[in-house]
Amino acid sequence: MKALVLEEKDRLRIRDIEIHEELGPNDVRIKIANVGVCGSDVHYYKHGRIGDFVVREPMVLGHEASGVIAEAGSAVKHLKAGDRVCMEPGIFDPNSPEAMQGMYHLDPGIRFWATPPIHGVLRESVVHPASLTFKLPDNVSLEEAVLAEPLTSGVHVARKVGISPGDTAVVSGAGTIGALMALALLASGCSRVIITDVKQEKLDFLAQHYGERLITFNVTKGDLKAFVAQHFPHGADLFVDCSGSPAAIGAAPHCLRPAGKIVFVGMPQDLVPMDIVAMQVKEIETVSIFRYANDYERSVALIASGQIDVKPLISRRFAFEDSIEAFELAASAQPDVIKVVIDCQ
Amino acid sequence: MKALVLEEKDRLRIRDIEIHEELGPNDVRIKIANVGVCGSDVHYYKHGRIGDFVVREPMVLGHEASGVIAEAGSAVKHLKAGDRVCMEPGIFDPNSPEAMQGMYHLDPGIRFWATPPIHGVLRESVVHPASLTFKLPDNVSLEEAVLAEPLTSGVHVARKVGISPGDTAVVSGAGTIGALMALALLASGCSRVIITDVKQEKLDFLAQHYGERLITFNVTKGDLKAFVAQHFPHGADLFVDCSGSPAAIGAAPHCLRPAGKIVFVGMPQDLVPMDIVAMQVKEIETVSIFRYANDYERSVALIASGQIDVKPLISRRFAFEDSIEAFELAASAQPDVIKVVIDCQ
Amino acid sequence: MKALVLEEKDRLRIRDIEIHEELGPNDVRIKIANVGVCGSDVHYYKHGRIGDFVVREPMVLGHEASGVIAEAGSAVKHLKAGDRVCMEPGIFDPNSPEAMQGMYHLDPGIRFWATPPIHGVLRESVVHPASLTFKLPDNVSLEEAVLAEPLTSGVHVARKVGISPGDTAVVSGAGTIGALMALALLASGCSRVIITDVKQEKLDFLAQHYGERLITFNVTKGDLKAFVAQHFPHGADLFVDCSGSPAAIGAAPHCLRPAGKIVFVGMPQDLVPMDIVAMQVKEIETVSIFRYANDYERSVALIASGQIDVKPLISRRFAFEDSIEAFELAASAQPDVIKVVIDCQ
Amino acid sequence: MKALVLEEKDRLRIRDIEIHEELGPNDVRIKIANVGVCGSDVHYYKHGRIGDFVVREPMVLGHEASGVIAEAGSAVKHLKAGDRVCMEPGIFDPNSPEAMQGMYHLDPGIRFWATPPIHGVLRESVVHPASLTFKLPDNVSLEEAVLAEPLTSGVHVARKVGISPGDTAVVSGAGTIGALMALALLASGCSRVIITDVKQEKLDFLAQHYGERLITFNVTKGDLKAFVAQHFPHGADLFVDCSGSPAAIGAAPHCLRPAGKIVFVGMPQDLVPMDIVAMQVKEIETVSIFRYANDYERSVALIASGQIDVKPLISRRFAFEDSIEAFELAASAQPDVIKVVIDCQ
Repeated sequence: MKALVLEEKDRLRIRDIEIHEELGPNDVRIKIANVGVCGSDVHYYKHGRIGDFVVREPMVLGHEASGVIAEAGSAVKHLKAGDRVCMEPGIFDPNSPEAMQGMYHLDPGIRFWATPPIHGVLRESVVHPASLTFKLPDNVSLEEAVLAEPLTSGVHVARKVGISPGDTAVVSGAGTIGALMALALLASGCSRVIITDVKQEKLDFLAQHYGERLITFNVTKGDLKAFVAQHFPHGADLFVDCSGSPAAIGAAPHCLRPAGKIVFVGMPQDLVPMDIVAMQVKEIETVSIFRYANDYERSVALIASGQIDVKPLISRRFAFEDSIEAFELAASAQPDVIKVVIDCQ
Repeated sequence: MKALVLEEKDRLRIRDIEIHEELGPNDVRIKIANVGVCGSDVHYYKHGRIGDFVVREPMVLGHEASGVIAEAGSAVKHLKAGDRVCMEPGIFDPNSPEAMQGMYHLDPGIRFWATPPIHGVLRESVVHPASLTFKLPDNVSLEEAVLAEPLTSGVHVARKVGISPGDTAVVSGAGTIGALMALALLASGCSRVIITDVKQEKLDFLAQHYGERLITFNVTKGDLKAFVAQHFPHGADLFVDCSGSPAAIGAAPHCLRPAGKIVFVGMPQDLVPMDIVAMQVKEIETVSIFRYANDYERSVALIASGQIDVKPLISRRFAFEDSIEAFELAASAQPDVIKVVIDCQ
Repeated sequence: MKALVLEEKDRLRIRDIEIHEELGPNDVRIKIANVGVCGSDVHYYKHGRIGDFVVREPMVLGHEASGVIAEAGSAVKHLKAGDRVCMEPGIFDPNSPEAMQGMYHLDPGIRFWATPPIHGVLRESVVHPASLTFKLPDNVSLEEAVLAEPLTSGVHVARKVGISPGDTAVVSGAGTIGALMALALLASGCSRVIITDVKQEKLDFLAQHYGERLITFNVTKGDLKAFVAQHFPHGADLFVDCSGSPAAIGAAPHCLRPAGKIVFVGMPQDLVPMDIVAMQVKEIETVSIFRYANDYERSVALIASGQIDVKPLISRRFAFEDSIEAFELAASAQPDVIKVVIDCQ
Repeated sequence: MKALVLEEKDRLRIRDIEIHEELGPNDVRIKIANVGVCGSDVHYYKHGRIGDFVVREPMVLGHEASGVIAEAGSAVKHLKAGDRVCMEPGIFDPNSPEAMQGMYHLDPGIRFWATPPIHGVLRESVVHPASLTFKLPDNVSLEEAVLAEPLTSGVHVARKVGISPGDTAVVSGAGTIGALMALALLASGCSRVIITDVKQEKLDFLAQHYGERLITFNVTKGDLKAFVAQHFPHGADLFVDCSGSPAAIGAAPHCLRPAGKIVFVGMPQDLVPMDIVAMQVKEIETVSIFRYANDYERSVALIASGQIDVKPLISRRFAFEDSIEAFELAASAQPDVIKVVIDCQ
């Protein structure tokens, strides 16, 4: 089938590739509709690796995806041919201790789309477990549905830390993940969220589309701790780092109220010096996040209910034939480009 | 000072009453602005008692209140004369084990306004602990602020059970408490909430003002379990009973998904037969609620942020001089009357 | 193979039975060593049903079991032929939503040994998922290991409610489940546990073997609430009902401190009238328990570490040939008989 | 009254000091019986400061204390003259938001004994809130009772992280706090705990007195990660750092199972480089600890019940007249000296 293949670092090609996938009784075969371009896709393209995951063989990119069921396995009950769906991209071993405990995303053997050596889904079709495939309500488009994937990180954070109504939060980093994190926190009960970045255009875009409960702050133009104290006099309840920046992480304990929580979403490149005593005197906790589990269907519900409007975040659309151009745009890091979506239909 | 005094069952009078209250260093003296009429006020008026709490001496009614600071004690820092405020009505002993554990509302010695023999605040002014008095943001009116009190029960439930984004809930009972409960759950991340009652007018009113995420169901017109299954195929995550009705409580386990929770807010008059085996096979938990603690400021934040619009719930306004008329209206249980507010200024 | 077959209500027979079980790659074949006789086994024998589970075809009994690995599937890594093991008896569908959320015991499709129509393991061998089969440490005998099964209910309760060191608890019912519940709570940090029953012999046995942190109380000889108040002046933190008795459950709210918890382990035969207001004024929660999940290995660890000594609870041993006699003894409800174990080797 | 006064860094003196303390209605006056010498007392003696807390005026040392009630305030119900007690040393403002939320130990205005400028209790008597004063059961000696203070850090950790029966833990640092932490974790349900240090004598002492569920490891003699993997093949559930050592903290993520927790008890002197990605891939959380709240009475219960035997940890006893000698011994850091206790009677 046709696919967008990362042949090696810096070399993308649209070509035929043979992927043999058998349809088991609990699987579905999905014709791919839309695929979002994620920062990790771009990173593999430009660097050939993320940490210990190295592209050694040609690999299909793409893991934020929607599609239409082409065929359902014999034991599948909740899906049938023609259903519009989105897909959770990590396939786990149900016999692993982690899966049995409900944290299947931490199964060390998980096979996640477009994480070497597992192929992604910028291709014609894929076979996938039905239990990781979610039917879209009528009012959720196949295009919007690709944003369920990055939104699910926000849902995972909200569930894991437990938001109380009226909570306040700081989100550092206003890219796709940071923006959806902020929206997920607001939808989960936070009264107000401060979102920070170094790029004013990103902040202006969010302020314009997502209004007054989302407060923007450019960290190059002032002191975050003072800004937080002005808006949240008790300190914030939550600090979610989506930047991986040591400066942002270092500021976190000073922005929080006693018993506040820091969440690590962004992945720092190096060790980060932490002021443990500053955390101790307030009994601050830290929570680490790695993808998500049992959260995907909730993201679809949040989009369907209107609690979160993801449509403004889709900046540009490309036909599958123009996938490489889409990747070049995504790689250009233009401040007015949030999410690039490829139409595979 | 002038006050609305319940002289005894069935006999209300506006008259002068002497209440001696000293202003301690951590107290504020508040000129009362608005007071909402609560079902418990009406109950004391019409029955002279609620359970073990019996009106034996003349008692001032009213505990849902806002006001303006007249004078602040010497140690008070966050409030000053002229500040617009609302007040949490229960004064606890900070040396009680319950208070030390952060559940001061369970202090058996708590003194709660308009719960015999403690006077309420349908009067000119009151002295109150500053720590239970909350400054109103500019965009919250003194009138809206009285609804912070019943809203806080909803906030308390949301915090105590822990709502995850995308959760679904059933609320039985569409009075003030039920309506605000549903709104609090939606503001806390629930995607959709079914609210039930036996009076169609109440349901129609809520449907009209609070839109499509709030689904109404008249339990006299069909089977609740089937209705829930149709809207929430996995079952609801939460069933919050605000009716105290054995029929509603009996239906709860059958409306819930495995590991769902039942919350008891309404107070049944008698023992309620519970199907424990039906709860066991799904490991359903029950949570009991008695007022609130550390939740009040959050209610103010939810109103100020626009997450919850309480204004439509204020059905009728009365001047203090017409308080008795206000109580008669509230006691008439007209289906189109939700909250009656008295203006004491 | 030879098996103890419940032909129908009141008719047990040792006979040959053909059970075809294929060894999948993630399975092990286990030669059965010891099997404990559980109250549910006896109940099926004497009544032919438990609730909706009705014995309609001949069924092998027994689900508290240990054994020795005869053969391991090709993908099994942690077990090999000759390993001494015990087995968690419920086989779930890993694709069910419940299993994905880590609560596989609530999968409605679970197949649990000796629950109609699923055969139990009073037979020569069984094929079982390796992920539900646990290797025994050298210091845990195959005989003790059968008590891991009922102990796991206690472990499940302790994990689910969250015991804090120094907590106090009341356990109603001093049968095998109640006794192991009390021991599990003590091993989990409770300082003292009151255990109640109507049979003095059972209480005397426990007092004699499990010493002063386990306090016994005969509910026929006094008022439980007063007894609890005398030993735990703040009230107990936890009330675990293992009796299913409405009287015990009715007493629970009155034995607890504010914010205490009631746990339903015993299964009442009828609806139980609950005093919800008595629970509300203390914000008491109830937790329902149905078997266990991810707890079994912990039971083995508690036995191996010496935290819990289960050996005194084994009252009588029978050879497989004398299984029917073992069942008759277990059915006789003699107060000095706690656990009867059958040796299948 | 006579007191042990730290006049300034390096200069201790036993002399008369005038401390005016009024007995309020909720207070008790306590004649001091025993006082333990804590590492922080020694640190103030030898360095004149801990972080931002600087000894600028003469200050009485000592905060681990027991005593006998001399006089009880008019509102005190649970204590009377002659009662043997121990005391929680931090006096908080009950009107602070932190106190109202049940985390009074995080009140920034807390006044903690022997933390400048607050006097400690190495003196004849003290006036203290009755709510922070706990009656000793008959079987707990006044000498043992001083160990309730450091034990309470362990209780606080156990309650805050929530130990499940069968958990495993690593504790780094085998001083008083580390040893009592390990004992508290074992009493709270951990099956086995590995405790580490660099001094073999400390480890040998613990191995000898606290047996096989407490496993010792000298980090100078091998690789901790490999040692943990050998004893706990899934990884430990918990890593509690009581050393403040960057090396210990750095090893923590590698010793833990997925979803394991790191607890920061020891206070590092500098920023600690943290491998956040190593925590993310296992979703490891960190919990910070600052003293304790609502835990003290539990420590007394654990000692009284026999769950924890603190007596072996008392290495040496001194009369009050020999207090300075006691401090010199404590400051000498002899590996065979754990707790030094001063008898003030």
